[in-house]
Amino acid sequence: MILSKNKLREITALKQRKGREEQQRFTIEGEKLAEETLQSQCHVDLICALPEWIAANRNLLNPNHEIYEITEEQLRKMSNLSTPNKVIIVAKQVRKEYKLPQNGLSLYLDDIQDPGNMGTIIRLADWFGIEMIACSPDTVDLYNSKVIQSTMGAFLRVAVYYTEPESWFEQAHKTELPVMGTFLNGSNIYKEALPKKGIIVMGNESKGISDKVAALVNRRLKIPPYPTDRQGSESLNVAIAAAIVCAEFRRQS
Amino acid sequence: MILSKNKLREITALKQRKGREEQQRFTIEGEKLAEETLQSQCHVDLICALPEWIAANRNLLNPNHEIYEITEEQLRKMSNLSTPNKVIIVAKQVRKEYKLPQNGLSLYLDDIQDPGNMGTIIRLADWFGIEMIACSPDTVDLYNSKVIQSTMGAFLRVAVYYTEPESWFEQAHKTELPVMGTFLNGSNIYKEALPKKGIIVMGNESKGISDKVAALVNRRLKIPPYPTDRQGSESLNVAIAAAIVCAEFRRQS
Repeated sequence: MILSKNKLREITALKQRKGREEQQRFTIEGEKLAEETLQSQCHVDLICALPEWIAANRNLLNPNHEIYEITEEQLRKMSNLSTPNKVIIVAKQVRKEYKLPQNGLSLYLDDIQDPGNMGTIIRLADWFGIEMIACSPDTVDLYNSKVIQSTMGAFLRVAVYYTEPESWFEQAHKTELPVMGTFLNGSNIYKEALPKKGIIVMGNESKGISDKVAALVNRRLKIPPYPTDRQGSESLNVAIAAAIVCAEFRRQS
Repeated sequence: MILSKNKLREITALKQRKGREEQQRFTIEGEKLAEETLQSQCHVDLICALPEWIAANRNLLNPNHEIYEITEEQLRKMSNLSTPNKVIIVAKQVRKEYKLPQNGLSLYLDDIQDPGNMGTIIRLADWFGIEMIACSPDTVDLYNSKVIQSTMGAFLRVAVYYTEPESWFEQAHKTELPVMGTFLNGSNIYKEALPKKGIIVMGNESKGISDKVAALVNRRLKIPPYPTDRQGSESLNVAIAAAIVCAEFRRQS
């Protein structure tokens, strides 16, 4: 099909959070992610692609797909990438209610702001078999293009849910599910016997875990620097800290 | 001092690698990094700042500093940040020859391309007390503004050196220093007794460790996914993988 001016305007509006919320849709870009998306359960609304991509990927397409053949110039207008890559998929957002997983590990992100960090955390959760990430309402939008692109497809497998910390952790406390977080005054994570289930809380890039959320954490851990008695202003990026914590939980299990 | 048009042009040229190499200088931005830089051994060439920053930070300045009072508009022109933050320092690049550290751990980066990954790796090396990172000549420029900013100051403490892998690893092989890297067919890192010294190699974001470098690695490790027998297209971001590997070496030591 040919892309109308209106349709183009609709799709470029998805670059902004406002547009994504109004339309309850988002974009997925590039050959690799498009292929993975089309082979997943993701609810694809429409596909915009260069003619060469469409010709080469007929096997991924089906008669229900609304497909637009676009020019390089239209692609550049719609794309969020500095180097647009042949195809943009518009998909429907998933907005459903999730329950707190009672078995296994899940994450809670408290006001993570950087889209790259958010995407990287979703990607590593996938690697470590963590199927759910709950987030405070002020955490960056999952459907931000940079988040989606930096998950490298993990957003297709990991559930992400925005919810207030109080109600979420209340459920955990009622069922005696541990709520864990890293703090400067926590216990050395390598010397602790870690539980096989619970919630791991990660905090904001510059402020760490907020006081409100910290009050709901009942197990304080620490990633020790090396040497362990070193003092200084050094810190770890939040995605890096999440990876080390998840790796240690999985190593012990 | 007042910033001349020529000076402004010189500083904006540092946004490009060509300008940085010609001038052998680079920029450091923002209040926090500026403070840390001015308290370090970093060779500061000049400082451009808003009058309010200069007034508030007299204690960090000394008579040798060449200081320019600039306007918001000039700051925006020079800055690499989407939200410029009051001060830009121009400093001299360190270009010296380093020897392979024979004690303790060091990293070798094989063609890392993303500035954010590079900066994050320097930051985590600092956390884990790794004092030196050698890089293949095609690795992203240390003095790229995004690299410097994402180190959060760790570039002031970790030595970064660009060198061909052959000569670097030849020294390691001669002195029986282990050269380690992660590969899909490596041994589970959690089940291996790891050495206290050696080189840890990290590879390119999409291609991994190059064949040339892989041939020089003599100990192959693997970060297992969870569950460990899971098959799939999932992968870890290179900075995340570096963090998990470094954490495991430090946990065991």
